[in-house]
Amino acid sequence: MKDIDEIIEALIAFRNERDWEQFHNAKDLALGISIEAGELLELYLWKNAEEAKIEKVKEELADVFAYAFLLADKYKLDVKEIVLEKISKNGEKYPVKKSKGTAKKYNEL
Amino acid sequence: MKDIDEIIEALIAFRNERDWEQFHNAKDLALGISIEAGELLELYLWKNAEEAKIEKVKEELADVFAYAFLLADKYKLDVKEIVLEKISKNGEKYPVKKSKGTAKKYNEL
Amino acid sequence: MKDIDEIIEALIAFRNERDWEQFHNAKDLALGISIEAGELLELYLWKNAEEAKIEKVKEELADVFAYAFLLADKYKLDVKEIVLEKISKNGEKYPVKKSKGTAKKYNEL
Amino acid sequence: MKDIDEIIEALIAFRNERDWEQFHNAKDLALGISIEAGELLELYLWKNAEEAKIEKVKEELADVFAYAFLLADKYKLDVKEIVLEKISKNGEKYPVKKSKGTAKKYNEL
Repeated sequence: MKDIDEIIEALIAFRNERDWEQFHNAKDLALGISIEAGELLELYLWKNAEEAKIEKVKEELADVFAYAFLLADKYKLDVKEIVLEKISKNGEKYPVKKSKGTAKKYNEL
Repeated sequence: MKDIDEIIEALIAFRNERDWEQFHNAKDLALGISIEAGELLELYLWKNAEEAKIEKVKEELADVFAYAFLLADKYKLDVKEIVLEKISKNGEKYPVKKSKGTAKKYNEL
Repeated sequence: MKDIDEIIEALIAFRNERDWEQFHNAKDLALGISIEAGELLELYLWKNAEEAKIEKVKEELADVFAYAFLLADKYKLDVKEIVLEKISKNGEKYPVKKSKGTAKKYNEL
Repeated sequence: MKDIDEIIEALIAFRNERDWEQFHNAKDLALGISIEAGELLELYLWKNAEEAKIEKVKEELADVFAYAFLLADKYKLDVKEIVLEKISKNGEKYPVKKSKGTAKKYNEL
């Protein structure tokens, strides 16, 4: 079994043991991702990138992934497929020639 | 090669072709996750969970995953490992007996 | 003195007593707003709008306002002016005739 | 009339003309704040604090304020009162003596 399937299976098992599927609608899962992304961000507040504590980054990033995988599962999306598709789309918005070495947004290139 | 490694490899290749590693410090990657989480959330604004358009969910969720994988790579974290560790930690905060069927936060159980 | 000026004055006094201006650059203040917005959002997670506890909403919303006022002050923006200007801009994007009674985004009207 | 009351009155008038009160429950207003906070944050992505464009900061910060004022109005909260109360609470968490000149969180002081 693949890594991602194993992760999702573990998340689902944890959820089902607690009978939490009833709360896990797509909208609240999206809230969960935003909330955890905020907690991750807090580790960098008033700091340089290097000053965040990796032990805490691990935990908050894991929480972001947990809700992201659960939301992917809710829609039965294949995570590898959607990320590779998005990379391909971004390749059109950010052609190497125009975007190399600049952090500008595609609508400013 | 495992699926997560393949995703990260594709993201890194995309980034390196554009010489973007210079911008990708951990703090800005954390900003990226929050920003994309906000765009995902917008798909549910003023709506029921079922009303979000799956085609757009796919794209915004892919963006969240992209920055989350890049941040994991920045710290050389193993995504499966950190998520499984977090599940195990959450098991202590949310014992089945106390948390079954309730959405209460651990400090309110 | 106006309400908003009094609020900002109190926030600045609190900050200066602690010698925190050195940390309060515009970017980190924007992070602060996002982080506090996430904490506010958490009060609604897995819940209906009515179930959030108002005592906590008060505190998290106050935190959002605090960083928002500090960021406005950083750029010497007049809060009333920028909000009224934005309302006027939104009036063009959302003409009453097209937007009445619908939650659609302007690019879908 | 006070400036905050004038802002809220203008926001309510804009909303009511479009018959949008039906969508503005507290939960979705909290989503709105998070989403707009993310758009504000995007203006600083991959940049130093000084590089964000003030014209855009104005607009995104105005959007954050707009939803924050609408949420305050939803609960009939007095914005000045809740911010001053929070400053007073924070004064206990961050006594000047311990917190002067350090960006540490209260639980690390």
